[in-house]
Amino acid sequence: MSGIFYGVGVGPGDPELLTLKAIKVIQAADVIIAPQTEKNPESVALSISRSYITAGTEILKMVFPMVSQKKALTAAWQNNETQISNLLQQGKKVVFLTLGDPMLYSTYIYVYRLLKESGYPIDTIPGISSFSAIGSFLGCPLAEGDEVLSILPATADDKTIDRVMAVSDSVVLLKVYKNYRKIVEKLENNGLLSQAVMASRYGLEGQQIVHNLQEADEKVNYLSTILARKCKNGRSERKEG
Amino acid sequence: MSGIFYGVGVGPGDPELLTLKAIKVIQAADVIIAPQTEKNPESVALSISRSYITAGTEILKMVFPMVSQKKALTAAWQNNETQISNLLQQGKKVVFLTLGDPMLYSTYIYVYRLLKESGYPIDTIPGISSFSAIGSFLGCPLAEGDEVLSILPATADDKTIDRVMAVSDSVVLLKVYKNYRKIVEKLENNGLLSQAVMASRYGLEGQQIVHNLQEADEKVNYLSTILARKCKNGRSERKEG
Repeated sequence: MSGIFYGVGVGPGDPELLTLKAIKVIQAADVIIAPQTEKNPESVALSISRSYITAGTEILKMVFPMVSQKKALTAAWQNNETQISNLLQQGKKVVFLTLGDPMLYSTYIYVYRLLKESGYPIDTIPGISSFSAIGSFLGCPLAEGDEVLSILPATADDKTIDRVMAVSDSVVLLKVYKNYRKIVEKLENNGLLSQAVMASRYGLEGQQIVHNLQEADEKVNYLSTILARKCKNGRSERKEG
Repeated sequence: MSGIFYGVGVGPGDPELLTLKAIKVIQAADVIIAPQTEKNPESVALSISRSYITAGTEILKMVFPMVSQKKALTAAWQNNETQISNLLQQGKKVVFLTLGDPMLYSTYIYVYRLLKESGYPIDTIPGISSFSAIGSFLGCPLAEGDEVLSILPATADDKTIDRVMAVSDSVVLLKVYKNYRKIVEKLENNGLLSQAVMASRYGLEGQQIVHNLQEADEKVNYLSTILARKCKNGRSERKEG
């Protein structure tokens, strides 16, 4: 008998933003895997989905060290894979929780690849991305009509960020805790600053919304996202929210 | 007493891909507005959420003629606004259903603007976008690491499409029923074709997944989305799914 591996997107923070499918999969799980970073023992994905976990379900906190595209996966990853494979071989339903959407800038993508190679059945359940929830909360359209929306991490190289901002009507910037001043400058140069808004820890404790990016603290939280759209016809969409 | 207006994203098709919040809002609604186009009496958003609607809830099918950014909203839109405002003035909870995510290329954006001006409270509930669900279903990551993901309608102008494809690692093309051959050619020119995949009517009756875009029918369904990513290090992500 072989188990099944689920990658479940738990959305940005509000437990009511999980899909019904995600909730059902979590409720039926034998084992829940809550990923955490080396530095932080808190698993945000776990606290978001805590209320849906059936009492007695095994919860495994696993550390997945940050993956660089240039570096091979480390021993820690191989150990995690072995542990998960053993559970699947025992016929368990193993659920891997992931913040936001599993197929968008997540550790899950690498976990998926590792396990795909070993041939176990995998079911991935999409989740609400932070930028989608922030757009709805603030009343900021992400894109309309024939507009181009680009999503990119603020850690991308300078030239790429410039080219993307030049060609896009709307941008979503992730991981803006690094290079904050540089990003604000680039938004300004590309006519994207006046309508930009930043949300930090959206849907979580300590949520903060910044409408004037020039005035933000230098210390920007790790979970920060900027939405920015070009101003058209003198119309200020950002003031709608 | 004043009512409240809800914009609810119902996701791409599977009723289990609504969020718990969306389901609760639909269940508590006094009136459900199901948008439909002039040509098609079917409301896809309505059929997706049908099972959550409490018996006896009033359902209003409303036609919202296609909006061009150059054209002012027509009389049909003004009539719809008046009708909705009257319901809100009566203190009703009015739910507007929208396919996918409400803040991404939806008619809801225009409805939101109309009503925002009249000052009624509005709550927008995000939804799962088709491309996010397709990525999870096929096991195709949308973007990882420092990659740039761009989302654009195939109806954008030629030069824009070329520039966006050149600068992006991954693209999502919406509304590909028009200009299909042109889009396939552009994907090929930008090294995006070998890993491209097209999903038509994803999650709905008649769903179709096309892995070889060169071989697809000329007649592409209205609800078609292409995911395409640049091939790196000779690795073929698209074959993973």
